[in-house]
Amino acid sequence: MSTRYFGQPIRRNEDLRLLTGRGVYVDDISRPDMLHAAVVRSPYAHARIRRIDVARARQMPGVVAVYMADDLGPLNGPLPLLIPHDDLVHGRTQSALVKDKVRHLGEAVAFVVAQDRYLAEDAAEAVEVDYEPLPAVHDLLQALDPAAPRVHDDMPDNVAARIVRNVGDYDAARARADLVLTERLRIDRGTAASMETRGIVAIPEGDGYTMYVSTQAPVALRNGLAGWFGLPQMKLRVIAPDVGGGFGPKVMMFYPEEVLVLFAAMKLRRPVKWIEDRRENFVATTQEREQVHEVEVAVSRDGTLLGLYTRFVHDSGAYTPYGIQVPIITLTTLPGPYRLRNYRVEGTVVYTNKPTVTPYRGAGRPHGVFVMERMMDRIAEALGMDPLAVRRKNFIQPDEFPWDTGLIYQDWAPTRYDSGNYPLLADTLVRLLDLDRVRREQEEARRQGRYVGVGMAFYVEGSGPGPYEGVRVQVEPSGKVLVATGVGTQGQGHFTSFAQVVADQLGVRVEDVHVVTGDTAAMGWGIGTFASRAAVVVGNAAHLAAQAVADKARQVAARLLECSPDDIELADGRARVKGAPARSLSLGEVAFRANPLRGTLQFGEPGLEATRYFSPQQSTFPSGGHAAVVEVDPETAQIRVLRYCVVHDCGTVINPMIVEGQIHGGVAQGIGGVFYEKLVFDENAQLLTSTFMDYLLPTASEVPHIETDHIETPSPLNPLGIKGAGEAGVIPVAAVFAQALEDALRPFGVRVTEMPLSPARLWDMIRKGGGTPPAAGEEVGNETSPREGRQT
Amino acid sequence: MSTRYFGQPIRRNEDLRLLTGRGVYVDDISRPDMLHAAVVRSPYAHARIRRIDVARARQMPGVVAVYMADDLGPLNGPLPLLIPHDDLVHGRTQSALVKDKVRHLGEAVAFVVAQDRYLAEDAAEAVEVDYEPLPAVHDLLQALDPAAPRVHDDMPDNVAARIVRNVGDYDAARARADLVLTERLRIDRGTAASMETRGIVAIPEGDGYTMYVSTQAPVALRNGLAGWFGLPQMKLRVIAPDVGGGFGPKVMMFYPEEVLVLFAAMKLRRPVKWIEDRRENFVATTQEREQVHEVEVAVSRDGTLLGLYTRFVHDSGAYTPYGIQVPIITLTTLPGPYRLRNYRVEGTVVYTNKPTVTPYRGAGRPHGVFVMERMMDRIAEALGMDPLAVRRKNFIQPDEFPWDTGLIYQDWAPTRYDSGNYPLLADTLVRLLDLDRVRREQEEARRQGRYVGVGMAFYVEGSGPGPYEGVRVQVEPSGKVLVATGVGTQGQGHFTSFAQVVADQLGVRVEDVHVVTGDTAAMGWGIGTFASRAAVVVGNAAHLAAQAVADKARQVAARLLECSPDDIELADGRARVKGAPARSLSLGEVAFRANPLRGTLQFGEPGLEATRYFSPQQSTFPSGGHAAVVEVDPETAQIRVLRYCVVHDCGTVINPMIVEGQIHGGVAQGIGGVFYEKLVFDENAQLLTSTFMDYLLPTASEVPHIETDHIETPSPLNPLGIKGAGEAGVIPVAAVFAQALEDALRPFGVRVTEMPLSPARLWDMIRKGGGTPPAAGEEVGNETSPREGRQT
Repeated sequence: MSTRYFGQPIRRNEDLRLLTGRGVYVDDISRPDMLHAAVVRSPYAHARIRRIDVARARQMPGVVAVYMADDLGPLNGPLPLLIPHDDLVHGRTQSALVKDKVRHLGEAVAFVVAQDRYLAEDAAEAVEVDYEPLPAVHDLLQALDPAAPRVHDDMPDNVAARIVRNVGDYDAARARADLVLTERLRIDRGTAASMETRGIVAIPEGDGYTMYVSTQAPVALRNGLAGWFGLPQMKLRVIAPDVGGGFGPKVMMFYPEEVLVLFAAMKLRRPVKWIEDRRENFVATTQEREQVHEVEVAVSRDGTLLGLYTRFVHDSGAYTPYGIQVPIITLTTLPGPYRLRNYRVEGTVVYTNKPTVTPYRGAGRPHGVFVMERMMDRIAEALGMDPLAVRRKNFIQPDEFPWDTGLIYQDWAPTRYDSGNYPLLADTLVRLLDLDRVRREQEEARRQGRYVGVGMAFYVEGSGPGPYEGVRVQVEPSGKVLVATGVGTQGQGHFTSFAQVVADQLGVRVEDVHVVTGDTAAMGWGIGTFASRAAVVVGNAAHLAAQAVADKARQVAARLLECSPDDIELADGRARVKGAPARSLSLGEVAFRANPLRGTLQFGEPGLEATRYFSPQQSTFPSGGHAAVVEVDPETAQIRVLRYCVVHDCGTVINPMIVEGQIHGGVAQGIGGVFYEKLVFDENAQLLTSTFMDYLLPTASEVPHIETDHIETPSPLNPLGIKGAGEAGVIPVAAVFAQALEDALRPFGVRVTEMPLSPARLWDMIRKGGGTPPAAGEEVGNETSPREGRQT
Repeated sequence: MSTRYFGQPIRRNEDLRLLTGRGVYVDDISRPDMLHAAVVRSPYAHARIRRIDVARARQMPGVVAVYMADDLGPLNGPLPLLIPHDDLVHGRTQSALVKDKVRHLGEAVAFVVAQDRYLAEDAAEAVEVDYEPLPAVHDLLQALDPAAPRVHDDMPDNVAARIVRNVGDYDAARARADLVLTERLRIDRGTAASMETRGIVAIPEGDGYTMYVSTQAPVALRNGLAGWFGLPQMKLRVIAPDVGGGFGPKVMMFYPEEVLVLFAAMKLRRPVKWIEDRRENFVATTQEREQVHEVEVAVSRDGTLLGLYTRFVHDSGAYTPYGIQVPIITLTTLPGPYRLRNYRVEGTVVYTNKPTVTPYRGAGRPHGVFVMERMMDRIAEALGMDPLAVRRKNFIQPDEFPWDTGLIYQDWAPTRYDSGNYPLLADTLVRLLDLDRVRREQEEARRQGRYVGVGMAFYVEGSGPGPYEGVRVQVEPSGKVLVATGVGTQGQGHFTSFAQVVADQLGVRVEDVHVVTGDTAAMGWGIGTFASRAAVVVGNAAHLAAQAVADKARQVAARLLECSPDDIELADGRARVKGAPARSLSLGEVAFRANPLRGTLQFGEPGLEATRYFSPQQSTFPSGGHAAVVEVDPETAQIRVLRYCVVHDCGTVINPMIVEGQIHGGVAQGIGGVFYEKLVFDENAQLLTSTFMDYLLPTASEVPHIETDHIETPSPLNPLGIKGAGEAGVIPVAAVFAQALEDALRPFGVRVTEMPLSPARLWDMIRKGGGTPPAAGEEVGNETSPREGRQT
């Protein structure tokens, strides 16, 4: 065998291109005669539209078209509900343009197309909309009030779905418990804030269209839009070029603007571009995280978790285009690495007059982990046990796999953990952290009057769901290898990880393997990059395709070199006869001769090419443990993160550097969610934090050095043994810091039950000596998030 | 079965798009910041370059770059010799830019890139080139003179190749002949003059390039350019969009400008466009047809052809990038439908200082047919036989197939006729023409002092050579069907013919089948559209792919409808249970359910899609007979074509309307070659006919009504039984008119031995009472081709 790339932390193939400015993002696409669009958005979160007058806008210089709802005809019907679910009794989706009633701030009301963006924006301001403002549903608990306004007039209340699950018998477990503990926990709303906002260009070409879209799912978007417009799929090519961050919201299919830009390009027969500006991104791109849980655990005296019962409310915002995936993921993630035999869930999904919720990195998992880990801490506290000991007590053991939680996962398959070793995970984390030393230092600090705390949390993440992906692998006569997949990429390192998988099979250098992603013309089959699935599903498809190509290469080379295919080894870019290194051909020569001009099909199909698909039957379940050591200054509520340690198990690892990069990014986003990122709405559901001056993102100085280690429990569910790693970093961060802050501030009796926590809120808790989540609306007054409040 | 489209003269799918102006040609491609190129071309046919000074040009406003040979470094080496051949001892190809010596008029010397084409042209004029003019080789016979200048200094003479072939024993045949007849025949030079000239746009995209090229062979061009530039193929996408005529020269790979435009786009990292203007097209695009034959036939008294011996000279122009395909095709086509058992050929391929020769519609076949058919006429004349009787006497009979001529064809496979019925062809032509009546009318005319003549000629055309083509067929959930092939299209009706083949297998409407051609991103395997091969090779690949998709559709439908696949019929866009029409699914629904979101791979690969390749082992041999009735006014040499009849056998016919369109176009081009189209060069090899005012094309008023009929002898070599039809129309036209003119002008003793014949030349022949081909250079003085000379 040649160098084995699998498992090596090699540098990324794509970085030279990206770092030298050759990345191509949607806004880099330009065409002669291209028109530019601006969206007229509602300044109200809830309002009836009495009249829209576009006459003045249409007459403005450079304005080519102004579209209202009726101009779209049947194309303005409610957009598809992407993931229907039996429990989603009242699914609702928005139309491309609002006709009668606006349901969240920034909803699109009209669409202006002009010679340039400036003219389009000016004309958008000149569109006169006569609104009748309505009282808004501005909070998820308020949504349940029978007196609350109704987001959707045709519904009896604001309840989109009720989700009830019962595993085992919680009541019986409670009856035999020594201890029952309850808690109320809240996670608030954030936004993914990708560096690149959404963007769309639609270009008429012949009797078809090419669209460049900053999307995570180009194939799905192509299929959906083609269906919506009644276009044959082959007349719509969707390209997701380089994408500057996705994190979930860009998997949404489809946004009003995707319909509007294509519609305008069709009508006007000219290229049309729309790039979301940052202000729009805060209201027009989907959001996540708002959820309130009431939790009860039943425990025996030795710390054994007998059962858990949670009632929770999930705020879906104004619509449910993505179904109820987020709360489903929360409730299926909640059990974590623990033997939870008796589990009752009652979830309520409500509509509010806030921007729509769809998955954002973690996609409900941080909520579930926050709930379970907080309760583990409560048990430890109540029983006077070490928090880690409680967790160890309840870990599923290595010989208990596959472990079926009894729940159906988001992919309609069982939530059945494929493999793992949670005790080893904990051992490794303890060793990485050097827990004994940390505890000694903590005590020493306390003696010095410093408040240091330790938090450790664990999670299991369902990743890599199907249905499937496909990969085409081709060896060129140049010896270069093409790997084409239908998924897009938003920085995950696909150009390298998939290249490593393929290079190993073909015995070529990883830099000679070129990955093409996100172009429906290159690979028109597939789903998308989300749910930590690309490495699992695409990676294994790439493996299978590369194996098929390698097999063919050995057959062709054997014919040319007059030996048996079993005697051919592929290494160093060559096909060699084993034991006779002088008898060899370059792999490029084999590819060239596999496509001979005479007798072309003697080798079956021409050339060295194969397409293979991989379709996992269920998700795979990576796991991890995070630990943080923090120091808090109780006078200022200023926090210093002294240590942050991650031990991660995503099965076999293709490229540890890339996995660690994913983890680091996830932790950074998690820290944002713990201390900085909060979308604050007032009682009119007006957004008070709609710029990066108000909505704070962690910068390099807020993100600590992250120490990582891996354990590997290969997945038995796929040939490569891999599990997903894209979301892992973010999942337990809130749970870890909650525990660490409580540990540090134990003398003050601080109880962390909400996320995020701004310094002002934490200061308040220190003063009050506790923390119960504020009731609906109450937190607004407490909320300040000026730049000066940033933790350092 | 549903409607069978195969064989139906249905309207073309592509016409609505093309007729409503939605065709996309290379010059329709535009990009922001696109630069425009102009080529500095030599005004001399043969000259040494002493010095090139681009300083002034480089400083002109708007000029971005001026490139000379050395600027290209190794990329300016001699371009690839596309089709090497053992007999081509001195193959020579040009470089992108001339460094030392110009070898034909208009050869590229420098390349100017500027903000627009006007500025580029102005700067091209400002490039100062110091030429030392050399005496030119201006005629193919002069090229053989030992005293002639040498086109390539490193060669001992101007002979590129000598081609000797012997079948049977010509000397023995001659020895036993009753009669030996000799003739000297000449066909002169023409140009394809496609409505769209060549054009190239190269666009940098990320770390790769997209090129739009008006080419007949996008895949081959992509492969070749990628190799030349050391680019991975996947980093170069070549698109042949709609192409306004190809006719052979656009299969050439690659032209200097293809290298230069891509080079400039790489260097400047901006899109670059070059569109050939008409004047350039006359010298920079390849040409064809110049050939002189000395012929001798050995005949027995009853008209049996015992043997044929030809010595010929082929003018390849200044280079041989396409090898010696044209003279090879001439000598293998020459035997035609006749039993030629003893055949000797001695061909000499010479270099001259004229534009390079590569195949142009017919590609050497018209020459071969002209030679054989002229000799058939000479035999008839010598023996006092009816010309048709001589032909019938020598026809290969229907029970003699496969008939092997003993020659290796252009595709290195035997020239082995697969099927045919030449006597039936003649019978059908006689019936279509109503020969007896025509002969009576001819006599009646003669009595009235009118000169009417009849010509009938026959040919066999090798068509549809390999190596292979591939087709991907996919049924979409919309029910529309995608058919992707790597070949380009230049108006042949691919969007319809291939659709018919696929529609039959899938039971869908032909207008629901969308064909995609000429985009290496859609299908990166294949060769190109030339040699009358697309219907044969692509058509059969489409058939096989559609069969595979239909099989899968039946399997999927059977699973869904709970029956056996054998019980499913595909018709009217549905999959139906035979005998239970209520149990059915639309084909789109079957496609959708063949790609389920759960259990995706239960049907193997997702969806209804298959790619299949077809690789014929040898060419297939269509045949035909043409007849013309002409009237000549001997006072003015004005000609009226009273009738033009074609009987054609291309095996089974996919769409007779399209085949007839091909025949009509071919005959029109043939008429151009007979009466109008002649490139006249002076003794400096300067072109005297470099505009459409001098080089005449037949217009609608010069092309007669063409009557067509078909016979069908299916090819046993492919599943569909088809043979090529693209070039058929042009092949025998010269032979037919030569015979008809002689027949009409018999009282004047006119002997037609050259093509084309301008009215002035014919008038001269009528006066002189005969016609032997003029010697080298001699014809120039006789040549006039003013617009007034056009025949009507």
